[in-house]
Amino acid sequence: MELKYAISKRRALRAFEPIEILDEMIKEVAETAVRAASCANKQPWRFVFVKGKEALSKLHETLVSRNYWAKDASMLIAVSSKKELDCVVGNREYYLFDTGMATAQLMLAIVEKGLVAHAMAGFNSELAKKALNIPEDMNLITLIAVGKHSEDFSKLGKKHQETEKIRSTRKPFEEYAYIDEFKG
Amino acid sequence: MELKYAISKRRALRAFEPIEILDEMIKEVAETAVRAASCANKQPWRFVFVKGKEALSKLHETLVSRNYWAKDASMLIAVSSKKELDCVVGNREYYLFDTGMATAQLMLAIVEKGLVAHAMAGFNSELAKKALNIPEDMNLITLIAVGKHSEDFSKLGKKHQETEKIRSTRKPFEEYAYIDEFKG
Repeated sequence: MELKYAISKRRALRAFEPIEILDEMIKEVAETAVRAASCANKQPWRFVFVKGKEALSKLHETLVSRNYWAKDASMLIAVSSKKELDCVVGNREYYLFDTGMATAQLMLAIVEKGLVAHAMAGFNSELAKKALNIPEDMNLITLIAVGKHSEDFSKLGKKHQETEKIRSTRKPFEEYAYIDEFKG
Repeated sequence: MELKYAISKRRALRAFEPIEILDEMIKEVAETAVRAASCANKQPWRFVFVKGKEALSKLHETLVSRNYWAKDASMLIAVSSKKELDCVVGNREYYLFDTGMATAQLMLAIVEKGLVAHAMAGFNSELAKKALNIPEDMNLITLIAVGKHSEDFSKLGKKHQETEKIRSTRKPFEEYAYIDEFKG
């Protein structure tokens, strides 16, 4: 899939229909993620691909109520890292930035498979770490809902039914990009 | 360009030959970056595209000596953000993670243009912020060297001449990815 097409197709959608997630697919998207850049090639990201019924159930318990739609996702990916897995240069820590770079590539690879990848912040991190045996000192930064998009939005709340139809907007160039000098 | 081809072509190369950087190209790669996901669509990233001779000279002064090769880049992109520009959920801050996601897309868009995008951590952040008028409270997380790759490595040090020829390796799947349960 063309890079720009994948980027334009990546949307935080919420209506899913069930699909089987094959191990082969997980390997392939992981290998696309791991090719990301990281400080001194530290590769600080850790991904738990959650697709088993029992593990998914445990993780569903940790979602905040506005993310209950994610219970219909066929897979949840827990993305975690910690400071010690990456460079710290002066007071600059790189683990979250580098994990973000790999996660962007992961999500684009999932989109290339014709699936939705929707990263969420609304979950109880302590409970989710316990559910997946993620060590306490890891920062569980996001759960990504992965699934096949459904044209049936009827299970979603009213607000989410509307957002499902509309692309989210972006800031104009002048508000986030500058030439030669910061002008924010 | 195919997504996977762009990802495989993105390499932290250091030998550059001069090329003109057009404003049109900057707009296009920025618009590819800004389509990234972010928490509640906050878009916390700020990019300064530095290509003017004077601005570049000021920024060169802030590089650590092992990054002097970046003085041959035709553009440097200063990527900054701060906590207040994005979600904070409990003790989870999202600005670095989200800025990483946009930066991955930015770098892939640059690769698609046939250019190198090499993100660096080795610079004096305080001096670089002053040089570009980036407010003190921003976290200047990376400078990205952008340029046309040169087949002539003779200006590089011996170690960098070698790394220029070899792709960096990646961890095997089992060391960063798990199914249903963390096993790190």
